[in-house]
Amino acid sequence: MTHDPDAIAGYDFGTDRVPHSPVTLEELHQLEESAGLTAEGRRFLALAGQVLADQAEEMVDAWRAKIGAQEDLAKWFYGPDGKPDDHYKAAVKPRFVQWVIDTCTRPYDQAWLDYQEEIGRRHTPEKKNATDRVQTPPLVPLRYLLGFTSVIITTTRSFLAKKNHSPEQIEGMYAAWTKAVLITVALWSRPYTKPGLW
Amino acid sequence: MTHDPDAIAGYDFGTDRVPHSPVTLEELHQLEESAGLTAEGRRFLALAGQVLADQAEEMVDAWRAKIGAQEDLAKWFYGPDGKPDDHYKAAVKPRFVQWVIDTCTRPYDQAWLDYQEEIGRRHTPEKKNATDRVQTPPLVPLRYLLGFTSVIITTTRSFLAKKNHSPEQIEGMYAAWTKAVLITVALWSRPYTKPGLW
Repeated sequence: MTHDPDAIAGYDFGTDRVPHSPVTLEELHQLEESAGLTAEGRRFLALAGQVLADQAEEMVDAWRAKIGAQEDLAKWFYGPDGKPDDHYKAAVKPRFVQWVIDTCTRPYDQAWLDYQEEIGRRHTPEKKNATDRVQTPPLVPLRYLLGFTSVIITTTRSFLAKKNHSPEQIEGMYAAWTKAVLITVALWSRPYTKPGLW
Repeated sequence: MTHDPDAIAGYDFGTDRVPHSPVTLEELHQLEESAGLTAEGRRFLALAGQVLADQAEEMVDAWRAKIGAQEDLAKWFYGPDGKPDDHYKAAVKPRFVQWVIDTCTRPYDQAWLDYQEEIGRRHTPEKKNATDRVQTPPLVPLRYLLGFTSVIITTTRSFLAKKNHSPEQIEGMYAAWTKAVLITVALWSRPYTKPGLW
């Protein structure tokens, strides 16, 4: 699959449309350390990026199917008419696919940090709907973001296991993916959090 | 190992010292569904409870060693003298061990729900330090709680693999553990969250 992330509408990674994150790089490094993501983990994550790149769209389709099947998850994508906003869903999808790849392959630097804050805000009233000019509910509640994280993590294992890597490599990639997703979600939780408690 | 949870100081599970959670049982069930914890997952979780019960203290010791080795994680357990508060650490430990067991074996009912809210609050200024009458910092920041969740999840796999279960059983237990921990942490995040965003 050939990617051209720059062609994805609303994918503002590394552009001046994304404000600086209030989180510092030092805080990010502390967070990575707290999650146990080491240099070895980064190597497994890079390998996972190779394994998942051409499966990322299938992964997102599988997650979307689960979201669509549970009203409490699906309704945050409904328009004012109470039906799924297909324009919105279509707009979000390539960014979701790109997120899988970025999580594995991008360096966790200032541009990456800034974009995680942006993604977090796009799930809260501060920025939800703005990017795609839609009128769905102004929020994905934090509890669903955290709960669904377990689906994002656990369903990825079978995709990591599809390309004949050793059990040790699969476990290494899976652990690194788990850590990377939780670091990411911790960053997304910031705009949800009361001042001083993040 | 014989457990007598009632003998653990500050372990108020199921007592009238624990207020009702503002989260409803219906919201809990929606959260469980969003995390993908099914009846099959509950069976794997029960099996994990059998596998982990006599290893839970060793797991907590391993986690504590990681916390102690990282200043950013350790300092939330320091007293006013800037040194680890050993009384506090000793008081928390048996509750942490019991949490491992409870997460696998307790039904997720009203008493369990209420106690998750209580544990969450005990990590925030609302209740931190109160249970053990100590003077450590009034918070464990949410980012560290979420980041360290990946350590709690990933390090458990080797403990699940120690008792000669099949690879399918080990993966099933590990996935169920991942889901249960994320449901739990989602509940703990509530007192950290801005009104209306949880």
